[in-house]
Amino acid sequence: MISEKYNQRAKKIDSLLCVGLDADFNKIPKRFLKNKFPQFEFNKWIIKETHEYVAAFKPNSAFYEARGDKGIRELKMTMDYLIKNYPDIFTILDAKRADIGNTNNGYVTSIFDWLGFDAVTLHPYLGKEALLPFLDRKDKGCIVLCRTSNLGAGELQDLIVQSRTLNNLNKRVPLWQVVAERVSQSWNKNKNCLLVVGATYPKEMKKIRALVGEMTFLVPGIGAQGGDLKATLKAGLNSVGLGLIINSSRGIIFSDNPKIEAQKLRDEIRKYKAIL
Amino acid sequence: MISEKYNQRAKKIDSLLCVGLDADFNKIPKRFLKNKFPQFEFNKWIIKETHEYVAAFKPNSAFYEARGDKGIRELKMTMDYLIKNYPDIFTILDAKRADIGNTNNGYVTSIFDWLGFDAVTLHPYLGKEALLPFLDRKDKGCIVLCRTSNLGAGELQDLIVQSRTLNNLNKRVPLWQVVAERVSQSWNKNKNCLLVVGATYPKEMKKIRALVGEMTFLVPGIGAQGGDLKATLKAGLNSVGLGLIINSSRGIIFSDNPKIEAQKLRDEIRKYKAIL
Repeated sequence: MISEKYNQRAKKIDSLLCVGLDADFNKIPKRFLKNKFPQFEFNKWIIKETHEYVAAFKPNSAFYEARGDKGIRELKMTMDYLIKNYPDIFTILDAKRADIGNTNNGYVTSIFDWLGFDAVTLHPYLGKEALLPFLDRKDKGCIVLCRTSNLGAGELQDLIVQSRTLNNLNKRVPLWQVVAERVSQSWNKNKNCLLVVGATYPKEMKKIRALVGEMTFLVPGIGAQGGDLKATLKAGLNSVGLGLIINSSRGIIFSDNPKIEAQKLRDEIRKYKAIL
Repeated sequence: MISEKYNQRAKKIDSLLCVGLDADFNKIPKRFLKNKFPQFEFNKWIIKETHEYVAAFKPNSAFYEARGDKGIRELKMTMDYLIKNYPDIFTILDAKRADIGNTNNGYVTSIFDWLGFDAVTLHPYLGKEALLPFLDRKDKGCIVLCRTSNLGAGELQDLIVQSRTLNNLNKRVPLWQVVAERVSQSWNKNKNCLLVVGATYPKEMKKIRALVGEMTFLVPGIGAQGGDLKATLKAGLNSVGLGLIINSSRGIIFSDNPKIEAQKLRDEIRKYKAIL
């Protein structure tokens, strides 16, 4: 079960911190721009500075695709470096993919096999049947968007729907709840599903935790987006004090001192975990 | 209005045909594999053979990403070739993207500016606010997944929801209908939205046509997926005999004679249009 890789690392270093390697070419420090591979060199520096506090790294594919094939090559170099030097750190490609059936094989090959990520983020709209090429990969993680952290997330996700899940045929619940229930009850046959649950919605997170048991959540929205860490940990930790991958991107990687910021967030996670 | 580019080409050659440049490396004829750029050379051949019947070309990004930075480079070469030689043909990247807010800028830069596509396919789950970097591009097309062509599309898309659109606060309608209504009534401020409506669901297509007026639909599912062309045209043509981008991928590009197959499908579209 792939989330065990994350759990082991999280326990070993007592941290739930994920650093988002969002190496925006327009924001990385100028000194990296003179390198032949600026995004890779920036990532290498961030990884060296922060790895001891980090249970997972999560590049967002958009920042690499923005530079075309060059960016993709530097994403690959970043993964090669991570796998060689820090093989026990969990790796997520935040790519928010989902196509239909066999077309997904291209993404599976690219993300899991060529780049070598442990997990990928996925859109749920096309349904389980469309996502089988991802879900069938028992050795990899499928992190399905459930309740996202953005301001307008509710436009569709809060729509009240007639749930068709096994246990509540007649209940009317928000769409994000149906996604949580379907993923945990039907899509997760290989125990390789996780959910994206934004830190900006702790009430919803609490409800989702109650619905899906021990499943791990990827949690964006701490820091720049305004999510509250204490409320998130209170709402989302599972019964063994795990179950959350707490992501911070800009707040760490573009700070004056990424090492200090990573340590600070790791320490805050420890502090709140201890008193909750 | 970007769909005017499609309309002009469609009228000029009297065709609604879109050829899907899904240059699956495992399926392209062996003779291309000895080239330095096999996917590009294959595409160039397909484009040369079929362009006279074609109103739009639509590569699916997954088949290029499967080959990492090499594939992305060949996708770029394909677009450079298309833009140089056939600038009036509409181009769609079937990438099914959607991230949150500014992160989408990376995809916008990559797909619209670097690769130079006219339009891209997008997931709706994150809502309008998340997609603004795409929607704000008045010069480009945002093709939102509404009713997809896959067998399991209904798992979420058919859920019955309490619609919150302007005109029917108290109506209970399927999720795909809410997406159609929201895109046409709220997301389409710049008149640059289109919808994905699969050929495998003509009943739903008819309903969506009635809801959204003249908006253009990208229609996958003809051919390999079993969609019926006559039923599709009957359900989906708009008031001026346009409004549909009829896609075929495998059925044309991996046939023994792509030219003949493209002409055949173009002729069938003409035939049914004439009798409807």
